[in-house]
Amino acid sequence: MTASFPSPDREADVFSLFPREEDFFALFRKQGALVKLGCDQLNEMMTSFDRLGERARQLKDTEHQGDLVAHELFERLNRTFITPLEREDIHDLASGLDDVLDAVEAIASRLVLYKIQSATPEARQLAAIVVKSGAQIEQAVNSLKDFKNLMGFTIEINRLENEADTISRQAVADLFDGQHEVLDVMRWKEIYGRLEGATDKAEDVANVIEAIVLKNR
Amino acid sequence: MTASFPSPDREADVFSLFPREEDFFALFRKQGALVKLGCDQLNEMMTSFDRLGERARQLKDTEHQGDLVAHELFERLNRTFITPLEREDIHDLASGLDDVLDAVEAIASRLVLYKIQSATPEARQLAAIVVKSGAQIEQAVNSLKDFKNLMGFTIEINRLENEADTISRQAVADLFDGQHEVLDVMRWKEIYGRLEGATDKAEDVANVIEAIVLKNR
Amino acid sequence: MTASFPSPDREADVFSLFPREEDFFALFRKQGALVKLGCDQLNEMMTSFDRLGERARQLKDTEHQGDLVAHELFERLNRTFITPLEREDIHDLASGLDDVLDAVEAIASRLVLYKIQSATPEARQLAAIVVKSGAQIEQAVNSLKDFKNLMGFTIEINRLENEADTISRQAVADLFDGQHEVLDVMRWKEIYGRLEGATDKAEDVANVIEAIVLKNR
Repeated sequence: MTASFPSPDREADVFSLFPREEDFFALFRKQGALVKLGCDQLNEMMTSFDRLGERARQLKDTEHQGDLVAHELFERLNRTFITPLEREDIHDLASGLDDVLDAVEAIASRLVLYKIQSATPEARQLAAIVVKSGAQIEQAVNSLKDFKNLMGFTIEINRLENEADTISRQAVADLFDGQHEVLDVMRWKEIYGRLEGATDKAEDVANVIEAIVLKNR
Repeated sequence: MTASFPSPDREADVFSLFPREEDFFALFRKQGALVKLGCDQLNEMMTSFDRLGERARQLKDTEHQGDLVAHELFERLNRTFITPLEREDIHDLASGLDDVLDAVEAIASRLVLYKIQSATPEARQLAAIVVKSGAQIEQAVNSLKDFKNLMGFTIEINRLENEADTISRQAVADLFDGQHEVLDVMRWKEIYGRLEGATDKAEDVANVIEAIVLKNR
Repeated sequence: MTASFPSPDREADVFSLFPREEDFFALFRKQGALVKLGCDQLNEMMTSFDRLGERARQLKDTEHQGDLVAHELFERLNRTFITPLEREDIHDLASGLDDVLDAVEAIASRLVLYKIQSATPEARQLAAIVVKSGAQIEQAVNSLKDFKNLMGFTIEINRLENEADTISRQAVADLFDGQHEVLDVMRWKEIYGRLEGATDKAEDVANVIEAIVLKNR
């Protein structure tokens, strides 16, 4: 039978049964700031297109910091009885934010791995949308505690996903016009797909936030 | 602490605590019909192979209608205390049906984006299996309320997935026989994979239905 | 409203309300042993590189046996009121183990489908890491009932994932050095990605085990 029996002799566990509500929100704000930072780092990489290896390592470091925060959120969730949001929503939000950061890091690393020499205009447009999504996510997460204006952020994140979808579809279609090296088709089809995929992950976060709003209004 | 506090002054919220059971089933039937329609539209696209752009837009519209129904299901779920099936199962079924529709739409759009000129026999065979899966899903969802004969549908959906798996494996192997343009290998490897993937998504739906049957018999 | 009403005249159902705790753990041990076997079979395939078709069929058979065990776990979970671990964790662990086995089977089948003639050193290194992950998973699952030393296994599985990530990134980067046939780039990019992906799936299993540890200590 499942149960969490805090050892009575371990003070830390006893306290963790009723952590300050604040803790979860503080960790989410930390994670939101890292998502924003990662999206910005990807965009700078795409616009400057210099020192790619170094920039990709910096983004990898941001993603690793995000892992640590997500891990702390999961650990706290598993050790806590009473939570300020539904357990499932805390889990889904932490996973969702982590997925956005993983997605942007994967793009940065592929720019390096695939030895890409310069960014296409469409890649820069898509990275600019990713940055906007990241900014909306950070603001939404910062507003989470007060449930203020959250739907405004989620609507905008959905709109950005649609915009990215339109651009990436056209960009992929252009790759198949017979004018591109096969290896470039392979490279950019994946990168465009992943850039659009990053805005999908942002939309998943927006959906979790929307569920939180619906349950708590 | 989590709780849903309906504003006492908002009648709609008060009523939504106890919606008619019927509502969820009606929405699922709507979603099931759209899944069936989307699968049919993909199959017609693959057999006729004309007006691809127009047909892909029609399927995109079907998928968008499916999004709206799924969204309504999620919203209702988040605002309702008592549900005719377990909350988790309602969520998983709505997500699963949405995933099938997303999968078939993604195939249709790729026929256009990759500028594919004609369907291969294997692609047509796979699309025919997708249609059969879609029909089984629609019937299963229509029978959901009465729990009648559901296992018959899930067994058939599993069988269809196996059939698609065998065909797509052979089709992909043939692509690597050294007789194909590299770009065509790239195109068809992805399309065969996605056609088989659509029957996987149908199988995921069958698994949710099976869980519902096991819990409610 | 959801409820499981056991038919009073069906003895099997009545008993299944309170199955011996042991049953779940026995099934997990069975699944863990199959995961280990599947990883070993993939590695032998990669090192010997002979009789690929036959070996891939054997691994497919292992994966199918794993499906049956996972299915039995899900069915038992859906028919049981009281479980030795949280329902969600039983579900996630069974799914996670199944995903590892699916991942290794998919690699084996692609060695055949893509008509690959010989393994690269990096593919062999990655397969060797997959084997180590599989062994850790088996041991962790065998230790599940007593909660003994589980964190040691999860830490090692995480370390192995990092190791695989480093190797696969370098291997993919080498593919884009301009010295490889495009079809080979396509083949190996996917296989390296899937080998690393298998260690990701192992890491997902480690995360579920970690959640179980945190909730039950």
